[in-house]
Amino acid sequence: MTATAKQETASKAITKALGDREIYVERIFNAPRERVWKALTEPDLVAQWWGRGNKLVIERLEPFRGGHWRFVEHTDQGVFGFEGRFREVTPPERIVQSFEWDGMPAHVAIQTMTLDDLGDGRTRLVVTIIFHTQEERDGMLQSGMETGMNESYAALDKVLATTA
Amino acid sequence: MTATAKQETASKAITKALGDREIYVERIFNAPRERVWKALTEPDLVAQWWGRGNKLVIERLEPFRGGHWRFVEHTDQGVFGFEGRFREVTPPERIVQSFEWDGMPAHVAIQTMTLDDLGDGRTRLVVTIIFHTQEERDGMLQSGMETGMNESYAALDKVLATTA
Repeated sequence: MTATAKQETASKAITKALGDREIYVERIFNAPRERVWKALTEPDLVAQWWGRGNKLVIERLEPFRGGHWRFVEHTDQGVFGFEGRFREVTPPERIVQSFEWDGMPAHVAIQTMTLDDLGDGRTRLVVTIIFHTQEERDGMLQSGMETGMNESYAALDKVLATTA
Repeated sequence: MTATAKQETASKAITKALGDREIYVERIFNAPRERVWKALTEPDLVAQWWGRGNKLVIERLEPFRGGHWRFVEHTDQGVFGFEGRFREVTPPERIVQSFEWDGMPAHVAIQTMTLDDLGDGRTRLVVTIIFHTQEERDGMLQSGMETGMNESYAALDKVLATTA
């Protein structure tokens, strides 16, 4: 694979609806799995990418079974809180957690994140998200989630480059 | 309806599986709707029945959209924490909230509680609970949930009698 092809595969996430109530996301990062894992679980690193360049206050980040997380993003459009709890944290390969946005309290999705070591210094992140209802899933897809997620992952690319 | 029949309808909840991922519960209480509503939402009253006679510590109870709740039950078998968040609180008739038990973190069910005024001083409570998966629903049904719930509702009967 050429350097250009590598760059292309790393630039945008595959996002698609899966079944009635799920979303599937796949994204390749040009960094080894341990480095991606740290960027997903260490507060000072998460603060640099999750908010897509916006100020992110990490009120809680307890990456272990039963631990909670709560992030508050400060944007030009307002302040947005997100929170959830960890069901499973298995370094450096798997995190299962709940996710909800303050604007739709108690609409809870479950995210399963898996990191695959591609063996060439790259890492594939696969995220499946299951909702209670199809309406919640479709609402998420229509909310601009894909754009926001790609902005976050682009910021994550930069964090991974600087932590090399 | 005779007094005896009234007593019988009030004594045990109807509990059944609904579809693939839901549980349906119905229970009649011998008290007006406003009184049942208070017992479901005021901390000092909830503390008297939710724990089925066990000590219940109400760490949080914020019955409004976006508010959180967290209860800790102290039993002979150990200490059990439960928590969630309110999606909708519409006095005196409807509460929608998330529910999870610390022992299975981020396995989140959504409970919709509706109080119907039966017009004769009695109130029908209908609860539907939706899970993300059929396995979670079946696990809840097999967990002794029905017994525990009937114990809680029997304790609630007593609270309602004393707040008359």
